[in-house]
Amino acid sequence: MSKEKLIFLTNDDSYRSKGFAAAIEIARQFGRVIAIAPDAPQSGMSQAITINNPLRLRKVREEEGVLVYSLDGTPVDCVKMAFDHLFAEEKVDLVISGINHGSNAAVNVLYSGTMGAAIEAAFYNIPSIGLSLTDHDLDADFEGAVKYGTQIVEMVLTNELSRPLCLNVNIPNIPCSEIKGIRLSRQTRGYWREEFFKRTDPHGRDYFWLTGAFANAEPNATDTDEWALANGYVSVVPVQVDMTAYSQMEQLKSVL
Amino acid sequence: MSKEKLIFLTNDDSYRSKGFAAAIEIARQFGRVIAIAPDAPQSGMSQAITINNPLRLRKVREEEGVLVYSLDGTPVDCVKMAFDHLFAEEKVDLVISGINHGSNAAVNVLYSGTMGAAIEAAFYNIPSIGLSLTDHDLDADFEGAVKYGTQIVEMVLTNELSRPLCLNVNIPNIPCSEIKGIRLSRQTRGYWREEFFKRTDPHGRDYFWLTGAFANAEPNATDTDEWALANGYVSVVPVQVDMTAYSQMEQLKSVL
Repeated sequence: MSKEKLIFLTNDDSYRSKGFAAAIEIARQFGRVIAIAPDAPQSGMSQAITINNPLRLRKVREEEGVLVYSLDGTPVDCVKMAFDHLFAEEKVDLVISGINHGSNAAVNVLYSGTMGAAIEAAFYNIPSIGLSLTDHDLDADFEGAVKYGTQIVEMVLTNELSRPLCLNVNIPNIPCSEIKGIRLSRQTRGYWREEFFKRTDPHGRDYFWLTGAFANAEPNATDTDEWALANGYVSVVPVQVDMTAYSQMEQLKSVL
Repeated sequence: MSKEKLIFLTNDDSYRSKGFAAAIEIARQFGRVIAIAPDAPQSGMSQAITINNPLRLRKVREEEGVLVYSLDGTPVDCVKMAFDHLFAEEKVDLVISGINHGSNAAVNVLYSGTMGAAIEAAFYNIPSIGLSLTDHDLDADFEGAVKYGTQIVEMVLTNELSRPLCLNVNIPNIPCSEIKGIRLSRQTRGYWREEFFKRTDPHGRDYFWLTGAFANAEPNATDTDEWALANGYVSVVPVQVDMTAYSQMEQLKSVL
């Protein structure tokens, strides 16, 4: 592929994260990179937007083929700032959000700031890919994520896929050599169930930490993203932007 | 209907908002009310969760049939705190999120803290209704929202609808007497396009305010929520929780 594409990057772990550097490594192979990423971690921010606070934009890196800004807002704010303001005149070929430190498989797609940004990018009619490695470690090994992320980016850039196109890509946390390949999947059914750890501060006031675990409602299904990851595959789930539950229209018609 | 139901309330405008009081007014007609709502406005927070900060819970109202707590987190945090901790032993019949000050029609469903909480509630297999009035005014008139909200709550409580069930209900900002009725609708296609207002602070540093307008991509369609609202109807859109774009599976299979 000729090295002539323009790729916009963002993420939710901030422009300082190792996963963001890995995303730049992927994107540079295909052309020029422009980016606006949060200036601080924004994990779990979903598709949140900043309404009541002003936003500050700062250039943090500029070199041949790579231009990075930081914004003190959400991942979605970064996308809006890029395509409605700072880079509004640019013709962007692809958006990559990530590489996230941690899984965005299953229902995580709805909580994820990484995927919030990827969905938002699709609203601008630009193909978007959310890349996530199922390892929260700040110093995680992104070798497999870069290898397979590169393959998927190339696939999207060389095929005219219908839009809106937004892919939720998760890479298993195993050595790159052990990854078996890429598997088209659907979002696993199941939800997080939380535990709240109660503590008391030095002033005698109680507070809670939210923690939890994902409960897979269909552990035996083999076409889900959780299955793919547990079995050594990179999962790819196409994500939609119309939240209408058409399957429930009929029964509602009968009672409304 | 016998007054015996247990209804959980939350919202994204905080427990102090006029819309929250209106939701309590609706719910009390059907039975006992328990609530956890944000202690400060959380508009635009989508399905965000609090990961890096502790959460503080406070009882703010207790009287016959009404028990309200506030939480310094997101609307989704409130739902999780309710069903995995504070009210884990209660058998809740219905969740109402709202009444929101402002429209959550069309793609707003994805940015909305009100709808983030309603979707989260559906994850606990409890029928949920997000109620929104298309008027941002802090002192908005909720008469029509209470009247039609009550009708829809009664419909959900008296029918065994399949789950997960999450309804996105929007009430037009017109006098109650002029509302023509309830209309089952689908999410309007179209996206927000933003404008960033640039200002300079007293220290000489630039900052931006994010503002925007919704661009309706199908202004002539008559089965959408935007059409319903523009034509004097209450819109009801069933919302799904599986984000998989099944319609894109075939083309992706051919290239992956």
